[in-house]
Amino acid sequence: MQLLLPEVKELLENKDFDSLKALLSESEPVDIASLIEELPISLQVVLFNLLDLETSYEVFEHLDPRDEIEILKLLDENRAVKILNEMAPDERADLFEQLPEEDAKHFLAFMEAEEVKDVKELVKYPPETAGGIMTTEFAWVPDSVTTGDAIDFLRKQEVDFDFYQVYVLNKRKQLLGIIDLKDIIVSPPSTPIKKIMDKIPSVPLNMDQEKVSNLISKYDLPSIPVVDKNKSLHGIVTVDDVIDVIEDEYTEDAYKFGAAGKPPEDYLSTSTLNIAKSRIVWLIVLLLASFGSGFVIQSFSTVLQKMVTLAIFIPLLLGCAGNAGIQAASVVIRGLATAEIKLSHIWRVVRKEFLIGILVGIGLGIVASIRAFAGQRALMLGLTVGLSMTAAITVATTLGGLLPIVFKKLGFDPALTSGPLVTTIMDITSLLIYFSVAVKIMQ
Amino acid sequence: MQLLLPEVKELLENKDFDSLKALLSESEPVDIASLIEELPISLQVVLFNLLDLETSYEVFEHLDPRDEIEILKLLDENRAVKILNEMAPDERADLFEQLPEEDAKHFLAFMEAEEVKDVKELVKYPPETAGGIMTTEFAWVPDSVTTGDAIDFLRKQEVDFDFYQVYVLNKRKQLLGIIDLKDIIVSPPSTPIKKIMDKIPSVPLNMDQEKVSNLISKYDLPSIPVVDKNKSLHGIVTVDDVIDVIEDEYTEDAYKFGAAGKPPEDYLSTSTLNIAKSRIVWLIVLLLASFGSGFVIQSFSTVLQKMVTLAIFIPLLLGCAGNAGIQAASVVIRGLATAEIKLSHIWRVVRKEFLIGILVGIGLGIVASIRAFAGQRALMLGLTVGLSMTAAITVATTLGGLLPIVFKKLGFDPALTSGPLVTTIMDITSLLIYFSVAVKIMQ
Repeated sequence: MQLLLPEVKELLENKDFDSLKALLSESEPVDIASLIEELPISLQVVLFNLLDLETSYEVFEHLDPRDEIEILKLLDENRAVKILNEMAPDERADLFEQLPEEDAKHFLAFMEAEEVKDVKELVKYPPETAGGIMTTEFAWVPDSVTTGDAIDFLRKQEVDFDFYQVYVLNKRKQLLGIIDLKDIIVSPPSTPIKKIMDKIPSVPLNMDQEKVSNLISKYDLPSIPVVDKNKSLHGIVTVDDVIDVIEDEYTEDAYKFGAAGKPPEDYLSTSTLNIAKSRIVWLIVLLLASFGSGFVIQSFSTVLQKMVTLAIFIPLLLGCAGNAGIQAASVVIRGLATAEIKLSHIWRVVRKEFLIGILVGIGLGIVASIRAFAGQRALMLGLTVGLSMTAAITVATTLGGLLPIVFKKLGFDPALTSGPLVTTIMDITSLLIYFSVAVKIMQ
Repeated sequence: MQLLLPEVKELLENKDFDSLKALLSESEPVDIASLIEELPISLQVVLFNLLDLETSYEVFEHLDPRDEIEILKLLDENRAVKILNEMAPDERADLFEQLPEEDAKHFLAFMEAEEVKDVKELVKYPPETAGGIMTTEFAWVPDSVTTGDAIDFLRKQEVDFDFYQVYVLNKRKQLLGIIDLKDIIVSPPSTPIKKIMDKIPSVPLNMDQEKVSNLISKYDLPSIPVVDKNKSLHGIVTVDDVIDVIEDEYTEDAYKFGAAGKPPEDYLSTSTLNIAKSRIVWLIVLLLASFGSGFVIQSFSTVLQKMVTLAIFIPLLLGCAGNAGIQAASVVIRGLATAEIKLSHIWRVVRKEFLIGILVGIGLGIVASIRAFAGQRALMLGLTVGLSMTAAITVATTLGGLLPIVFKKLGFDPALTSGPLVTTIMDITSLLIYFSVAVKIMQ
C-alpha cells in the first residue's frame, strides 16, 4: 500500500489514528519522512507521535534538519531526549550545530553522559572536514586477540549499528590495522588477529571532506578511519557519507558554472533578499566587464553610422560565440572534475578545441553568411559576418577549453570559468573581430 | 616512497628492473595504474610484466578500458588469460563489450568455463541497466541452515571477494531475504537463518541504472539484489557502482547545461570530427533561433539609424540578461536534481525568482543607466537603458526559474534548459524590450 499525501491528510483530519498506524507500519521510514516534510508542522507532530519508538528513530534521521528542530521542540520531552540518545552520532552533531544555543543546552542536560560527550566532541570539528562528517560508531578489537576471541569480544559489545569492517587498536587506542568481518569468519578461530589484519590509509581530523571522499572512491573503500596526531582512532567516514559529499560538491560546481554564488543551505527557505545579494555580486562584476563591449562599439561608431545593417548581426555573432565557449568550458570543467583530463593534457586539449572551433566555426560561418547575404543582398556584409563568425567561434572554443585548465594551474576551482564569464569575455573579443574584419573588407 | 613518472621512466629506460620492482612493491595498485596510463604503450607492457601476478590483477582493473585492451593484446597469452579469469565479473563484462569481436572470441576460447558463462550472461544486458552494472559475485546461504551452519557454509565456498551481506536463497535459488554478516556473528550459533534475515527490496534486470542508484542512496543500502521474473538472484549492484553512476549522470547534466551534446566515452581519444559534429547540432539550432534577434533589430532599424548610440548598449543589456537567466536556471536545475525543489513548488519558485529578478534588475539598471548617462550625456538614453535592464533581468530570472520546471512537467530532463538556450531566448526578448522602451521614451 502506498503512502499518499491526500489520504494521510484526510485520516489525520478525521483522527482515524488506527488506520493511519496500520498504514505507517507497512511503510519504509524514508518514505514516512518524505511524507512528513510535506505536512504543516502541527500535523507533523501528530503523525510523528503515532510512530512506534523504534521507527520514529529511523524516520527522524531522514528528515531535513529544519524539520527535525521544529518537531523536537514540540515533542514530549521524554520522547525528544530518547530520540537524541539514539541518533547516529554524525547526524546528531549536524543537528546540534543548527539548534539554537538555548535549546541545545536544554537537551544536553537530559541526555546520557556518553552521548553528550559524543556531541561535544563532534561539534568541535568544522562541518566540511573529516572530523565534521565522521561518525563515532565503529567496531574494534584489541590487537592481542585471535579471530575466535574477536567474535566473542564483538558479541559482548552488543553493538546496535551495522558494521562490515573491524578496526584493530593497541592498548593506547592507536590504529594498527583493519580486518574484514568476512576474514574473521572464514579464518580458523585460533588465528591471531595481527596476522590477518590489513594496513589501511587513515586521514587526519581536519582533512577537507572533498579529499576524504576522493580517497574513499579512488581506493574503493567501504570506510576510512579518522585519526588524531597520535594516530588514535576518533571515528570513521563511510561510503554513504561520500555520496552526500559528491552531491554537495557537484551542487557547488553547478552554482559556480552558473555564476550563482554559494549554494544556500536550503533554496526555498532562504530569504529572497539574501539570494539576490549573493547573485548580484557576480552580475555587477560582469556588468562592469561588459562596459568593454560598449567601448568597442563606441570606437567603431563611425563605421556603424555608415552601415547600420552591421548592428543586425551583433546579437547573432555574440550569441553563437558565447554558446560555443560555454560548450567547450563545460566539457573541460567536467573532464577535470572526473580526472579524465589532467593538467599535463593542457596542449592536447587546446589543440583539440582549436580544431573543433575551426570546424564548427566554418559550419556556422557559412550559415550566418548565407543569412546575411540573403537578407541584405550585400556580398561584403555576408563575407564579413561569415569570416568573423568563423574566427570568433575558433577563439571562443579555444578559450573555453583553456581557461578552466589555467584556473586549475593557478590553484583556483576550474568551475569558476562560468558560462557568464566566458560569454562576457567573448562579447568583447567577438566585437573586436567583427569590426576589424568589417573595416578591412569594406575598404 | 612516491611513485614518480620521470623516475620510473628513467628506471625503465636504464632497464634497472630490480629497483623498479622494489619501488612497485611499495605502491598501491591504483597508483601504479595511474602511472601506467601516463606511459607510452611499449613501456606500459614492460612495467606491467614486472608486477607479481596478484598485484597485476588489481592494477589491471584500475586501468581505462582503452589501456586494458592494448595491454591485453601485447601480453603473453598465458598471463592475459589468467588476468581475464581473475577480474571482477562486472569489470570484465565491460571490457569484453569494447573488445573487437575477433579478440573476444580468441580469449574466450582459452578462459575457464565458469568465467566464459559469466561473460556471456553479463554482456547480454544493456550497459545502463541493473543487469549491465551488476556483479555476479555475491555470498549466499540456503534458507534451511542455522547461523553456525552458515559460517561453515561460507568458509567452504572459499570466496576470494569482499562481502558484508549474505543473501538467503531457497532451493530454487529464489531470493528470500538478506542478513548482515555482523548478525550472523553476534547471534547464537543455533539460530535459524530464516528467523533473523531481513526483507530487502530487489530490482529487475532491466531497471535503468539511475533508478537503481537512487534506490541504493535513498535507502542507504550497501548493495541491492538484481532478480529475474522468477525472483531468482542473478547478481548485485553495490554502493561503489552507484558512485560511478552518479558521476556519469553529473557529466551528462553538465554537458546538457552546456548544450554540448552527449558525453563521449573518452574525450581525449574521441576524434575531433566526432566531437565537432555532436556540438554543431545545438549551435546550428540556436543560430537559427537567433535569426530572431536580427529581425528585431532590422524592424527597428529606422530608430537605430536616428540614434546609433543605442547600439552601444546592446551587448551590455543582452549579456546581463543572459547571465541572470543562467544563474536562475542553474539554481533551479540543481534544486530539481536533488529533489529540494519539487514540481508542486512551481509557483513558489516563480514568485521567488520574479522578486529576485526585480531586486537584482533595479541594482543593475541603476549602474547601467549611470554608465549610459555619464558616457553619452543623454538623460533619455540613460533612462532607456536603466528601465530596459530592470525589465529584461526580471524576465530573464523568472524564465530561468520557470523553464526547467516546465521541462520536467513535460517529461523532459530539466538540464535541457541549457545556458545557451536561455541566452538565445533572452537575446530576442531583451532586444524587444529595449527598442520598445526606446521608442516610447524618445517620443
